[in-house]
Amino acid sequence: MDEGAEVLLSAAARAEDALDVDVLRMREALVEAEAAAASGDVPVGALIVDASGVVLARGRNRREIDQDPTGHAEVDALRAAARQLGRWRLEGATVYATLEPCPMCAGALVNARIARLVYGCPDPKAGAVDTLFTIGRDTRLNHRFAVTSGVLADECAALLRAFFAKLRTAALKR
Amino acid sequence: MDEGAEVLLSAAARAEDALDVDVLRMREALVEAEAAAASGDVPVGALIVDASGVVLARGRNRREIDQDPTGHAEVDALRAAARQLGRWRLEGATVYATLEPCPMCAGALVNARIARLVYGCPDPKAGAVDTLFTIGRDTRLNHRFAVTSGVLADECAALLRAFFAKLRTAALKR
Repeated sequence: MDEGAEVLLSAAARAEDALDVDVLRMREALVEAEAAAASGDVPVGALIVDASGVVLARGRNRREIDQDPTGHAEVDALRAAARQLGRWRLEGATVYATLEPCPMCAGALVNARIARLVYGCPDPKAGAVDTLFTIGRDTRLNHRFAVTSGVLADECAALLRAFFAKLRTAALKR
Repeated sequence: MDEGAEVLLSAAARAEDALDVDVLRMREALVEAEAAAASGDVPVGALIVDASGVVLARGRNRREIDQDPTGHAEVDALRAAARQLGRWRLEGATVYATLEPCPMCAGALVNARIARLVYGCPDPKAGAVDTLFTIGRDTRLNHRFAVTSGVLADECAALLRAFFAKLRTAALKR
């Protein structure tokens, strides 16, 4: 094998590794989403890792259980990560979220100065990173972050669909 | 005086009363902003009243003192109001904020289903209600709220200017 082919293969392997790491992290965020559903909250989960890949915090949607309008998974995880580090600036951090962040959460990611967002499925009704707004890429704001979308999108969306289907069935039985 | 003129005068008096109430509430939000500055945080304050005008909560920027990237005045006040009521839906509530909300805070106001926002001065760098975005009037989102701007705008802006001038002086002396 010549050197050029080896470099290409190595780059491909690295790309696959990176993808695998994202998939691995998203599986951990999905565990949080499942826990949210178990306590009656819409199943959305989040995970935050620092620049070296160490997990800083996990978060889940807690709106119903905490009766907190700001209790989305990303905000929950950002606050926990800041507590863990003892500082509000989360520079270098990557946030994994099972659902595309809403305007509140996308704004919180900007405010926390994160480096990268990886999300699962898009949110056609409130997605603020790609769908309705492009917060995170907006050059008018004082911070931007990289975005990777569609990681385990089917699993993330299936969890939400199953939750809402169960709610509808329960409502019909009433 | 004929009945028509009386009705007009009464409407004018009601409008003036409403303005005075907004000014009164904004003065209370300014007290919160001053308290934020005293503890080293950018002076932004908020106040939330319910549909009958009862104060539900006060909030202030706590980012530095709490080292919380989500610790803006509006989020602080929304969480306190939800705790006070024991529910995340703040329908009918009016939120007073000394500075135009950022994307995170504007999104949080949507998520909390508030009825009305009154703010002091615009934020040219991050304002998400009128300046950079029009969250709150966006018909694609699942909730909208009324907006009144410019209430005690000069006082709200002067407080911010004084805070940053002091920071600059302190930096120069170092």
